[in-house]
Amino acid sequence: MFDRVALIGIGLIGSSIARVMRRDKLARSIIACARTEKTLNTAKRLNIVDETTQIISEAVHGADLVMICTPVSTYGEIAKEMAPALKPGAIVTDVGSVKEAAVTAVVPHLPKGIHFVPGHPIAGTENSGPESGFENLFEGRWFLITPPPGTEQAAIDKVANLWKCAGSHIEYLEPAHHDQVLAITSHLPHLIAYTIVGTATDLEEDIKSEVVKYSASGFRDFTRIAASDPVMWRDIFIANRDAVLEMLGRLSEDLAGLQRAIRIGDGETLEALFRRTQEIRRGVIEAGQHIPPAPVNLDKEK
Amino acid sequence: MFDRVALIGIGLIGSSIARVMRRDKLARSIIACARTEKTLNTAKRLNIVDETTQIISEAVHGADLVMICTPVSTYGEIAKEMAPALKPGAIVTDVGSVKEAAVTAVVPHLPKGIHFVPGHPIAGTENSGPESGFENLFEGRWFLITPPPGTEQAAIDKVANLWKCAGSHIEYLEPAHHDQVLAITSHLPHLIAYTIVGTATDLEEDIKSEVVKYSASGFRDFTRIAASDPVMWRDIFIANRDAVLEMLGRLSEDLAGLQRAIRIGDGETLEALFRRTQEIRRGVIEAGQHIPPAPVNLDKEK
Repeated sequence: MFDRVALIGIGLIGSSIARVMRRDKLARSIIACARTEKTLNTAKRLNIVDETTQIISEAVHGADLVMICTPVSTYGEIAKEMAPALKPGAIVTDVGSVKEAAVTAVVPHLPKGIHFVPGHPIAGTENSGPESGFENLFEGRWFLITPPPGTEQAAIDKVANLWKCAGSHIEYLEPAHHDQVLAITSHLPHLIAYTIVGTATDLEEDIKSEVVKYSASGFRDFTRIAASDPVMWRDIFIANRDAVLEMLGRLSEDLAGLQRAIRIGDGETLEALFRRTQEIRRGVIEAGQHIPPAPVNLDKEK
Repeated sequence: MFDRVALIGIGLIGSSIARVMRRDKLARSIIACARTEKTLNTAKRLNIVDETTQIISEAVHGADLVMICTPVSTYGEIAKEMAPALKPGAIVTDVGSVKEAAVTAVVPHLPKGIHFVPGHPIAGTENSGPESGFENLFEGRWFLITPPPGTEQAAIDKVANLWKCAGSHIEYLEPAHHDQVLAITSHLPHLIAYTIVGTATDLEEDIKSEVVKYSASGFRDFTRIAASDPVMWRDIFIANRDAVLEMLGRLSEDLAGLQRAIRIGDGETLEALFRRTQEIRRGVIEAGQHIPPAPVNLDKEK
């Protein structure tokens, strides 16, 4: 499918797609680029890439597919560095959770004849680093493609085919619309999880230890989400600021309403909401999206 | 261990402990009491109880252990109805998520010589009803006992031993302290999950369908929590109002701080929090509380 693939960043997503490409022989060679020797050595040890380098221009040299798998704040610098070294006609893609900011950061740097196909796999776990990846992470999950107007169809199809091999279903969205949808389905839940776990860490010492001890009652699920990569998520909230603040505003209003209902003992309002939310769950189950990712990295969890 | 056990309510928790008692032959006979014929028929069909009745005084007649497994708002009425029929020396226990309100609702109705041992298993799933129970639900989980001052030790030990057979670890807490801890570990996470899923249901139609479609990116976990029993949770928030509002106040402050950080693009503040929350997750994993309940009711999930 590809001759030479350059992965800029080899964390959970980068290492998982590398495993897929190895399994299905989708690339003649895969080169990984990362900032630290340590990450690259891990990738080599796992035998999921053929070559490694810390130099971006070296990584993309001769590559027909370049995939950016780093936090969104790094995109501009990476695009600038890779631009002069890109092979004419190469496809550049990414896996970032915010798409308007990705387009804005990357497109201005790319020379004519380079195809930028922004993408986003709706899959992941709370773990990060090359060891945390696994080849069936994307199985049955969505891969969203948000091509800027005028992107060549052949380039889009090549990226789509790669992710189909990974087991993903493909969908096409406008970048701005993608960012709005993800603000509520992903960014807001993460923000809330981070907040609530943070609130718990500020509690008086005697309660704090008990919070961990008795976390199986709901809190546990939030700690899992709030264990996600700090830098990646810092960048997401800043890059998708407008949509996140808009959704957070709505949430705050709704929360104030519930607070009032609890204060005045208005059980009807509470129960009515709790029945409505059960229906959404049924929708999620019907859409087949209720099963969490299968093989958790057990070594890391221990 | 017991001669005759009366279960008032036979949902997720009641039916799970009934299964444990059956498996380990802890009771000579088990009688289930529920409001609807349908629930009782299900319990009979599942063969987890020996007798059924819709009349509370009939259920507790001759029982040496009475376990209340219904929403907290029903406790007062149930205690009042059972009081005249209770066998002298009987133990009354419960499994409710709020303990001060449980004590306040039950104790005034109980005749002298009856032992009230309030309890709370820190275990559960989002499913409800007798079919959703399973015998290893409590395996490795905490069972919290919050005895009012002066409760007889022998009665406490009998209840503790039952839950040890279910695989639980026992801990003793003051009722008010229990309610504070659970407000942050359980009640607030549920409130937030209900809110965020509710916010999503109020979105414009075009986004709403996509929220379900792309829920695997974080939202899914909230929909699971927000599928919990509406009546049970309505009662919990109202019964534990003060502690829930206190914790909600802290959360709102913290959320306002994060909102500001996002608005002004203060990445440092965000990243610092996100690193702190990772540590809490490590604590949860070290405490062995990170693994979600094992056998989900798959029939119901399909």
